[in-house]
Amino acid sequence: MKRVVTFGEVLMRLSPPGHERLFQSPTLRTYFGGSEANTAASLAHFGARVEHVTRVPSNALGDAALAALRAEGVGVRACARGGARMGLYFVEGGADVRPLRVVYDRAGSAFSEIEPEHVHWDAVLRGAEWFHVSGITPALGEGPLRSVHAALNAARAASVPVSLDLNFRPALWVGRDPKPILQPIAKRAQLLIANPGAIETMLGITTAGTIPEPPEALRATAEKVHELFGCTRVAITQRETISASEHGWQAFLWDAADGAMHEGGRHQVQVVDRVGGGDSFVAGLLHALLEGRSPAHAVRFATAASALKLTIPGDFNRVTADEVERLLSSHR
Amino acid sequence: MKRVVTFGEVLMRLSPPGHERLFQSPTLRTYFGGSEANTAASLAHFGARVEHVTRVPSNALGDAALAALRAEGVGVRACARGGARMGLYFVEGGADVRPLRVVYDRAGSAFSEIEPEHVHWDAVLRGAEWFHVSGITPALGEGPLRSVHAALNAARAASVPVSLDLNFRPALWVGRDPKPILQPIAKRAQLLIANPGAIETMLGITTAGTIPEPPEALRATAEKVHELFGCTRVAITQRETISASEHGWQAFLWDAADGAMHEGGRHQVQVVDRVGGGDSFVAGLLHALLEGRSPAHAVRFATAASALKLTIPGDFNRVTADEVERLLSSHR
Amino acid sequence: MKRVVTFGEVLMRLSPPGHERLFQSPTLRTYFGGSEANTAASLAHFGARVEHVTRVPSNALGDAALAALRAEGVGVRACARGGARMGLYFVEGGADVRPLRVVYDRAGSAFSEIEPEHVHWDAVLRGAEWFHVSGITPALGEGPLRSVHAALNAARAASVPVSLDLNFRPALWVGRDPKPILQPIAKRAQLLIANPGAIETMLGITTAGTIPEPPEALRATAEKVHELFGCTRVAITQRETISASEHGWQAFLWDAADGAMHEGGRHQVQVVDRVGGGDSFVAGLLHALLEGRSPAHAVRFATAASALKLTIPGDFNRVTADEVERLLSSHR
Amino acid sequence: MKRVVTFGEVLMRLSPPGHERLFQSPTLRTYFGGSEANTAASLAHFGARVEHVTRVPSNALGDAALAALRAEGVGVRACARGGARMGLYFVEGGADVRPLRVVYDRAGSAFSEIEPEHVHWDAVLRGAEWFHVSGITPALGEGPLRSVHAALNAARAASVPVSLDLNFRPALWVGRDPKPILQPIAKRAQLLIANPGAIETMLGITTAGTIPEPPEALRATAEKVHELFGCTRVAITQRETISASEHGWQAFLWDAADGAMHEGGRHQVQVVDRVGGGDSFVAGLLHALLEGRSPAHAVRFATAASALKLTIPGDFNRVTADEVERLLSSHR
Amino acid sequence: MKRVVTFGEVLMRLSPPGHERLFQSPTLRTYFGGSEANTAASLAHFGARVEHVTRVPSNALGDAALAALRAEGVGVRACARGGARMGLYFVEGGADVRPLRVVYDRAGSAFSEIEPEHVHWDAVLRGAEWFHVSGITPALGEGPLRSVHAALNAARAASVPVSLDLNFRPALWVGRDPKPILQPIAKRAQLLIANPGAIETMLGITTAGTIPEPPEALRATAEKVHELFGCTRVAITQRETISASEHGWQAFLWDAADGAMHEGGRHQVQVVDRVGGGDSFVAGLLHALLEGRSPAHAVRFATAASALKLTIPGDFNRVTADEVERLLSSHR
Amino acid sequence: MKRVVTFGEVLMRLSPPGHERLFQSPTLRTYFGGSEANTAASLAHFGARVEHVTRVPSNALGDAALAALRAEGVGVRACARGGARMGLYFVEGGADVRPLRVVYDRAGSAFSEIEPEHVHWDAVLRGAEWFHVSGITPALGEGPLRSVHAALNAARAASVPVSLDLNFRPALWVGRDPKPILQPIAKRAQLLIANPGAIETMLGITTAGTIPEPPEALRATAEKVHELFGCTRVAITQRETISASEHGWQAFLWDAADGAMHEGGRHQVQVVDRVGGGDSFVAGLLHALLEGRSPAHAVRFATAASALKLTIPGDFNRVTADEVERLLSSHR
Repeated sequence: MKRVVTFGEVLMRLSPPGHERLFQSPTLRTYFGGSEANTAASLAHFGARVEHVTRVPSNALGDAALAALRAEGVGVRACARGGARMGLYFVEGGADVRPLRVVYDRAGSAFSEIEPEHVHWDAVLRGAEWFHVSGITPALGEGPLRSVHAALNAARAASVPVSLDLNFRPALWVGRDPKPILQPIAKRAQLLIANPGAIETMLGITTAGTIPEPPEALRATAEKVHELFGCTRVAITQRETISASEHGWQAFLWDAADGAMHEGGRHQVQVVDRVGGGDSFVAGLLHALLEGRSPAHAVRFATAASALKLTIPGDFNRVTADEVERLLSSHR
Repeated sequence: MKRVVTFGEVLMRLSPPGHERLFQSPTLRTYFGGSEANTAASLAHFGARVEHVTRVPSNALGDAALAALRAEGVGVRACARGGARMGLYFVEGGADVRPLRVVYDRAGSAFSEIEPEHVHWDAVLRGAEWFHVSGITPALGEGPLRSVHAALNAARAASVPVSLDLNFRPALWVGRDPKPILQPIAKRAQLLIANPGAIETMLGITTAGTIPEPPEALRATAEKVHELFGCTRVAITQRETISASEHGWQAFLWDAADGAMHEGGRHQVQVVDRVGGGDSFVAGLLHALLEGRSPAHAVRFATAASALKLTIPGDFNRVTADEVERLLSSHR
Repeated sequence: MKRVVTFGEVLMRLSPPGHERLFQSPTLRTYFGGSEANTAASLAHFGARVEHVTRVPSNALGDAALAALRAEGVGVRACARGGARMGLYFVEGGADVRPLRVVYDRAGSAFSEIEPEHVHWDAVLRGAEWFHVSGITPALGEGPLRSVHAALNAARAASVPVSLDLNFRPALWVGRDPKPILQPIAKRAQLLIANPGAIETMLGITTAGTIPEPPEALRATAEKVHELFGCTRVAITQRETISASEHGWQAFLWDAADGAMHEGGRHQVQVVDRVGGGDSFVAGLLHALLEGRSPAHAVRFATAASALKLTIPGDFNRVTADEVERLLSSHR
Repeated sequence: MKRVVTFGEVLMRLSPPGHERLFQSPTLRTYFGGSEANTAASLAHFGARVEHVTRVPSNALGDAALAALRAEGVGVRACARGGARMGLYFVEGGADVRPLRVVYDRAGSAFSEIEPEHVHWDAVLRGAEWFHVSGITPALGEGPLRSVHAALNAARAASVPVSLDLNFRPALWVGRDPKPILQPIAKRAQLLIANPGAIETMLGITTAGTIPEPPEALRATAEKVHELFGCTRVAITQRETISASEHGWQAFLWDAADGAMHEGGRHQVQVVDRVGGGDSFVAGLLHALLEGRSPAHAVRFATAASALKLTIPGDFNRVTADEVERLLSSHR
Repeated sequence: MKRVVTFGEVLMRLSPPGHERLFQSPTLRTYFGGSEANTAASLAHFGARVEHVTRVPSNALGDAALAALRAEGVGVRACARGGARMGLYFVEGGADVRPLRVVYDRAGSAFSEIEPEHVHWDAVLRGAEWFHVSGITPALGEGPLRSVHAALNAARAASVPVSLDLNFRPALWVGRDPKPILQPIAKRAQLLIANPGAIETMLGITTAGTIPEPPEALRATAEKVHELFGCTRVAITQRETISASEHGWQAFLWDAADGAMHEGGRHQVQVVDRVGGGDSFVAGLLHALLEGRSPAHAVRFATAASALKLTIPGDFNRVTADEVERLLSSHR
Repeated sequence: MKRVVTFGEVLMRLSPPGHERLFQSPTLRTYFGGSEANTAASLAHFGARVEHVTRVPSNALGDAALAALRAEGVGVRACARGGARMGLYFVEGGADVRPLRVVYDRAGSAFSEIEPEHVHWDAVLRGAEWFHVSGITPALGEGPLRSVHAALNAARAASVPVSLDLNFRPALWVGRDPKPILQPIAKRAQLLIANPGAIETMLGITTAGTIPEPPEALRATAEKVHELFGCTRVAITQRETISASEHGWQAFLWDAADGAMHEGGRHQVQVVDRVGGGDSFVAGLLHALLEGRSPAHAVRFATAASALKLTIPGDFNRVTADEVERLLSSHR
């Protein structure tokens, strides 16, 4: 069983029942999630041994966050406790012409004040086979950014390969240029995952700008990422938001080994919960690659995995590898 | 902030959870609504200052009805209390080939016994900028009909313009001809809203009778309404019930000022809750016109508003004007 | 298996969740009940073959009422369908110092307009071993009163013994004297069940007026009932409402055969749902007497049965005879 | 009112809320169902007098199963009580690309140990107008198989016509050949209902093997069933599982009287709950034929009935005959 | 109808269902509350015209807070919008030996950053008949403290009497001495409400320190408050926490006019929700005094009102004045 | 952090909402539990490092059982997967005079077919500091009994002390004498926990037989256990079931080191959920003893811990050691 380490904030999410608007009735459903934690949970369902590193407060919300991760099979032994509060976000799913609505309440969270010394990075990464982080984590504060670099240094020292999911969230970068922050991190990643917009905004590589972009344009973008940042594999995802209830989802994986652009296929899905779709793609990709599958298979597996995620409530992709394979084999 | 007055019955609605049939499980969800109250609630979300006039019993159901309106931001100071009971209706939403099912239980309601003297109509309408009523209200009894005329007289005295949404409900007119009741009211309205069937049945103007009717036929109908009843603006809505879960929705606004028939566009929507769709259209129209927008914009705004309504559980359209504008700008 | 026939209105009850006030949140729990129907349901759980006669509307509410009775094992083949609406009532359970609150909405119900010819009384009572009705039924209208007499005549013709639970509900008798209505019915009953207040108000027999009344006073009352109305058994129940959450409950059965006043014991119970307590007492009494148990045992069985009812949500006493016996044997 | 007898296991089904995966949250919804019981419940909603024969344990689960059937209007007087446990199954509905997931827990159930002497078959079938059983029942054990034959013998003795729905469930036949068990039963059925796959596997008749099969191939199959087993009517259903959320459904009825293959039409439905679709088709067919409708109408009625079923949560088709007719008349 | 103005933070509260621990299941119930807002809501149910002044963010949480107040009948026209976030708190009710548990998450709330200029204090208090604030508000930050003084100045200018509920919350004063902050405010209050501990900690007056304190000791304390701060009425409340599920509650009102210590009686209550008990006492007191009732009656009314509050879920006391009077008249 | 190993079956429990009877409404709440697993979960909340050993099926129920344990912080790495089904039980909590009702459905469970070779007992117990098992486990079948002995042998080999909670469940021993099975196991335990009835039935030591037994009688019993079986510590618990809603709970710990009988105190508790009370006592005892606390403190800690458990829904005692200490310090 492969051992993967992921790093990032865990948020408590609160959502109204059914198709209701926020606070339309006095009931909220709680979920826990966060980009890298979502990837970790999905990997655990695929059978990997995953350790997620985060920081949560020493109160009932922090306890619940760790319990939620443990329930999915994600290790939390290395997590730091402390800080003022748990980051929250309120999500209204929307329906058809009514888009998803999110109210973030994550300022001042325990994670945003994490420092490198809160985590025994060398011990955590010793013996690991993969380290994954997203572009959200370095955006959350100086401490998180320092911690990303501490983790990357420990990963290099322990020869642990690294993946970076750019995951551009405009709200986190208001008034800041992400490029000087993300470019050095990208240079440390063997595998980079992103959509074209994120590559343009966070790495400074001009893309075609159409949705969806044609495969040829994506291949050129991937090659440029390889050229400038040295990533040996570049996965590019594209989401078409047909409505709040229906998405098209496709992805490609460029592999430096053969210079090929492998297609993951396209799934058009009636969306139950869109949150965590991209994170489940990363999990699918890591799982398949760590299992030694070919890039061509891995991107198909990852794309199918994230199609399944869109049908599952909550941030985590609670599907087994068998379920993904069954979808792959039934998908035309 | 514009001040609008609406008048009509508020009912308590009870619906089973999810896609269940009525009483399939022992839980019901309550909502409050009613044609004009729905319009009022939507206007309040758009930022208008709205006063809804109704009559509810002096018991916990009446209290809850007023609390529900107040929660949405609708003023209820002018409401009368008294009478025997709250009108109710039980709604099963249906799904796809299984149509909406409604069981009405509104006989003998407090509102059906309202009398003009229960409301200080002169005070209520003094300073108002708009008065709105639907064709349901005069159908509910002699007292409600007398009250509509009392309100119209007070509106004329205070120079408050009037809108009438014909809102034909066959169950309310069994064995009665609506024309002698509605035609005099239509003559008092500057703005009339209806679908072609209602215009035919309630005003006696022959229409094309196809669904949907072609714009040219609708224009002729609108001109006829203007000619016979003097309304200077006539909005015509058309709902295509593709299934219980999917509706097409479009509307037009004819304006006497330029003689033009302005198209509101067509939205095909996965329906979460169809109740209140037409009422939210009226709210959108009043909001945009009171804000001084052109008829061309107003009908597009109103059509988009009611498309959004179809995605929201309950009778009220809990969307802001910004949300409507965003849909308009994304709608092709 | 003994065959019992009961007659009376079935209402739909709507209650908020937990200890909430009515309409504090938008969820209601539905139950079905009614004095005689509650007795019927409890008898069915005891193993009797019971037929309940009522009238419900031909709509989804009426369907649900009959389904609820059938689910409990009560026969509904003789029920009439028709009329305008289902009677409803809204119940807020209260808690400790906050008393139960009820909002009735039963005017104009299908049952209140029942007529003797809606039911084949001769067929229904042929072969029955018992007929039970409460003092609520004749209060509901002229038709129900006529129907009670039609049933009593059919019972006499078929030599079916009769029980009457006076069940005084002040709201049903506002401005009316129940005595001229109930006294003739009492004369037709072999078994009369009541609390002292009901005996005073509905039969005109002066009682001690204290709560609880001493057994000697109750015996005198029972003897007076026997003397004036000829009932051969008289059960007197006494509820002490210590708070909305705690009741004392005791009962006595006077038997003309031995002139003895049999004590049922006293149960002090943390109340889960007080509705239907008295009706479950009647069921316990009928069950035990029909099974040939002694009056001394029957009143103890009935008192324990109604103590159990107070711990069960809803109007029906869903307990088996074994469960009642177990409580009896554990009760000190 | 026609009297129909059905025979088969009733299971308790447990499902998570909404689109959740099993045990994603700690709430389960219970339903009761089973192939023949589903048919019985649907027939009761159509107005038939139905008696379902089964065996459930003498505990709270068995009580609840019978209460559920009684609530739908199905008679349960002939049911046997006893045995170790209630059969259960856990169902996760799936969504779009995520298929339905079922976990069966029915081994050792009370029904699997039913014996012919548990039921008074002669009494049950005396005066009945139809007997229905599915191919699931004989698969559940030696006792159920013996009971099927006891029932068929009693049916023959009482001249009660028989229908058999093959209902092939691979999990029940692992390591066993269904043909020697089903072929003799098929010979006793006047009406056989199946999809092509079941006919091939359980009766040994080779079919075209495409989905959907062309009408001509289906006609040949039906004729072969008639030829080999003597069934005078053969209904063939075809479900196209477009996704977990969308099914195509069509059916045909071949009638020996005129040798015609009557088409039931095709319905493409957004699926709320797929369980019980086939059983509701059988109910529709029996209802229409017992009402004396033509085969051509009966198969259209039955196909529409099962289209409606797909929109209703739970195993039972809670629709009236009027509702089916309304769908038929609106269906193009 | 008297016009009362209250000022203080509104928090969103989130609680698990039933007796569960926080996050034991994934559902939370939302409530809105806050000391002065609770008083305002209770006053509105008593029939007063109340305006609550607060500041909430311009997002869905802020909208919901204002909607909740409006639903109760509290005016929110004077509220400020803006700031970073809504203050939250998570409440687990406890049961018997397991005490209430609260997790606050209110740092950085919109209200904690309110400034005097956010509110038109002169306009708000013009024509008001009472102004109420608690000792929580000045603890929340410099801006809230400045705002309290702005309000007090406006109240003095408009001759509006003032009440202060000391409401000592240790968590808000960690490392700070409340005396220099509260003493000047107390000097502006005609009516002061507190328990003995708060009087000692926040005003510096030594009290007996026993629970409960004897009336004589309380009288001495009240007189001292009058002497040092000039308050003409001093109400002292005492809560005995017998368990998380049972509280004793009593109160006294000292009146400078007659120098008497009026007893409010003692209620021992099975607690449904302890939050807001003290705030409902204040509302009862203000209501009765503003209605011109005697201090002797007012304190009995207020004590009974807060006994009722303890039986109602949520922070608000949803009882009418009639309900309080009924409890008073039934209370021995 | 001490490392404890526990061994026993995990069952899925299903309970109706609130005070409802089983299947009164169609919703069930799932919990997971089992005597030793409950002890493990409580220990994890106290901060211990616990590994629970069990066997669950390879399906969604087994997955959920392990997820539930992981969520509480219990290690499940050593658990076996396989077997036919998950053991279930249905629990209706009862209320006051209505007792708890349980329907077990555990026959043929995966655990009942566990074999010693399914678990690497030597590896599991290597380095452990305690091993705990209850008298339920050896009652579940030959394989479980063999596994208990395998575990005890491995514990002896690794010098791991052992505790045994006799936990007599009559239903598991129908027709069997537990003595020959339990006596040899008791001889392997350093710490034995039981109530007097279990000691009499399972170990064959005559006890006083009163409830509660006087401390002197309990001391004699404990000494006899020591004499016959060599246990150096004997804890005796006594539950007084005052009603389904109120229990008295007390315990004693006899210690061979000083021959003293240490009293744990008595708690009278309003019961929220009685299941798991004894298991939480064991956890409290092990925690305190492993932390090096005196027997006198340990039994008081354990008794308070189980008092808290009775207030928490579900089988697990979700309280921290701090919360227990706070109750101890507030308990008179």
